[in-house]
Amino acid sequence: MISRNDALELDAADPLATLRDHFDLSEHVIYLDGNSLGALPRHVPERLQAVIRTEWGKGLIRSWNQAGWADLPRRVGDRIGRLIGAEPGSVIACDTTSINLFKVASAAAKSSERKVILSDEGNFPTDLYILDAVAKQHGMKVEMWDPRTDAITDDVAFVAMTEVNYRSGERHDMATITNQAHAAGARMIWDLAHSAGAFAVSLAQYGVDYAVGCGYKYLNGGPGASAYVYVAPAHQSAFENPITGWWGHARPFDMSLDFEPHAGIDRARVGTQHVLSLAALDAALDVFDDVDFTDLQAKSSSLTGLFIDLLGDRLPDLEVVTPPEPGRRGSHVSFRHPAAYAVVQAMIARQVIGDFRNPDIARFGVAALYIRHVDIWDAVQHLVEVFAGAEWQQPRFQLQSAVT
Amino acid sequence: MISRNDALELDAADPLATLRDHFDLSEHVIYLDGNSLGALPRHVPERLQAVIRTEWGKGLIRSWNQAGWADLPRRVGDRIGRLIGAEPGSVIACDTTSINLFKVASAAAKSSERKVILSDEGNFPTDLYILDAVAKQHGMKVEMWDPRTDAITDDVAFVAMTEVNYRSGERHDMATITNQAHAAGARMIWDLAHSAGAFAVSLAQYGVDYAVGCGYKYLNGGPGASAYVYVAPAHQSAFENPITGWWGHARPFDMSLDFEPHAGIDRARVGTQHVLSLAALDAALDVFDDVDFTDLQAKSSSLTGLFIDLLGDRLPDLEVVTPPEPGRRGSHVSFRHPAAYAVVQAMIARQVIGDFRNPDIARFGVAALYIRHVDIWDAVQHLVEVFAGAEWQQPRFQLQSAVT
Repeated sequence: MISRNDALELDAADPLATLRDHFDLSEHVIYLDGNSLGALPRHVPERLQAVIRTEWGKGLIRSWNQAGWADLPRRVGDRIGRLIGAEPGSVIACDTTSINLFKVASAAAKSSERKVILSDEGNFPTDLYILDAVAKQHGMKVEMWDPRTDAITDDVAFVAMTEVNYRSGERHDMATITNQAHAAGARMIWDLAHSAGAFAVSLAQYGVDYAVGCGYKYLNGGPGASAYVYVAPAHQSAFENPITGWWGHARPFDMSLDFEPHAGIDRARVGTQHVLSLAALDAALDVFDDVDFTDLQAKSSSLTGLFIDLLGDRLPDLEVVTPPEPGRRGSHVSFRHPAAYAVVQAMIARQVIGDFRNPDIARFGVAALYIRHVDIWDAVQHLVEVFAGAEWQQPRFQLQSAVT
Repeated sequence: MISRNDALELDAADPLATLRDHFDLSEHVIYLDGNSLGALPRHVPERLQAVIRTEWGKGLIRSWNQAGWADLPRRVGDRIGRLIGAEPGSVIACDTTSINLFKVASAAAKSSERKVILSDEGNFPTDLYILDAVAKQHGMKVEMWDPRTDAITDDVAFVAMTEVNYRSGERHDMATITNQAHAAGARMIWDLAHSAGAFAVSLAQYGVDYAVGCGYKYLNGGPGASAYVYVAPAHQSAFENPITGWWGHARPFDMSLDFEPHAGIDRARVGTQHVLSLAALDAALDVFDDVDFTDLQAKSSSLTGLFIDLLGDRLPDLEVVTPPEPGRRGSHVSFRHPAAYAVVQAMIARQVIGDFRNPDIARFGVAALYIRHVDIWDAVQHLVEVFAGAEWQQPRFQLQSAVT
């Protein structure tokens, strides 16, 4: 049996232990939902105050140039690019993940005569909805495949997957699947929602064509933080953004009547960006400045591994759905239970915050920047108590409505 | 000749004079660019601090329910709806103006077999770019018309106009044009970027089909504040959002594989909204709580009228392009000059902030919430001095690059 002391010893040896000090976390809360909304970095409120009071309040319209608001999507994009192995000038921070997926899926659809889009049923629903919309608009169809067993046929225009399954935490093999797509003459889109900031991603190395992701999970950019979009340099000059807004124009302030796309990644922009949300994300990214991603990946694996081992030790009948192999999982651990919703609510009442995913998944994210091994141990202890006392059966924990 | 004292007397009689106290404006700056970026309402920084430190920092993921983040687009939408004469439940605050125009233009295109979209060359360029994109995607074409002289033919699916011309300040006749469109069997889209918050708008009264607008101009929501979209109640159940994201789903947290649109205006949503930007806009709207829009319209007319009269008095050779009739102009005054860029720069150096619009327009917005008649008088005095001393000819004021 793994003891609480074992967990404390792992924390004592953790090279990233001091990173937790960057976050404003209560000692009374065990926050295992950083994969839905990252915790608040301590320096963000002050930075936002400066943006609001000085840049907006005093600089007024001049701040579009003087405070660099106009280039913020590009600057933040490059900072995120560093975390996902993208070339400089290939990522732009803007809009939402869904809208960015719409852009790249539309562009991928237009780049091919083929009529099939491939995805998998474990993809996040909004991705599937967007792919369906793009398919309808281009006379295509979306087919589901299982990358472990199915081949990619030569009628596939592109494959769109989320690297980490939002329910099970299973991590797909980005290198192999991207290669498979390319070998079949298809392009590859990855959604990095549960990847960026959780572990190293290597878009350029694997030759990924397009990627999207959000800023509010492991990047800690705040609620509804700006999302981002990656277009491989080789595709940029032919990239057709289906939503041709003025900020994607080669010279937006010419105010010309005809649209001429920007030569580079800026063509993936559309309208005026949400500067306050972008500035919060920009500030939040400071936390990553000195992070070694090998260490981060190792800690994430260690935390999720400890979680799985403890569940095996102490709740052996629980159906853990997260793969036990470190290379095959992302940074959250999930189990399936008919009363998953109520169990999560009972845990939240104990200040252990995870989340529920319909219909029967309890999900616990470990953001390695600020979660400790002892947090995992304590969380499992709470879970043992919740099950031992059938605490989740209390009426107040039963399903009424659920929100991310 | 109108004296500075005349201006001060107008201010002394202004029923809205105290509203300026809501804003954090320096007495050393005359801010005539509230039509590009509204000034900072004093209470916004503190409100944002609470959202960041308490709702995000302490509430964490729970704030999606407990702090009402999930419904914020709808709540803010209804608050904006009150300012633009929209029915409750017909406006949602989200995304950017360009993206929202893409949504309603796509929906309008799908609602008709007709193949022509009508707009005018004075429309803001991003609107024209978006309409072109929608036309291409639906096998349609965009034609330009002049609402003062041209009829709407029976091949027109919809007309899309911006109520106030971003260059000249000319205000189109919303009631007449909407009626014309409907009489021709076409639908009507209005862009309210330069209308909402500047004067009263009556969408429901005029039977407008769709509208969009931004939060960062006269609504004072901050740089890149969330935009909004209006869909008339009669069209909502058939409204096809081309970007089907999970927040537009009838039950987003069912996480079902198939998209079923929300029954109401929420179907115009897509991804997770930028909560910080939305919260700033929400707070900024408080300023409008006690504003009588008849007073606001009267003050806007009085300010722009004074501006035009003073230019006529003191710079009679200047080519003012804003209509002199109060009912035919919005809330900014523009003149055309070959050196408009340099003139605006010279004015900014004197702390009188207006803006330049390519190729030869100098534009000065009057946000009646915080601009005084004496500001107009002083601004014109500066302009007279800039021209008298040929100050704008200094090399430092010549065009290098221009931003909003």
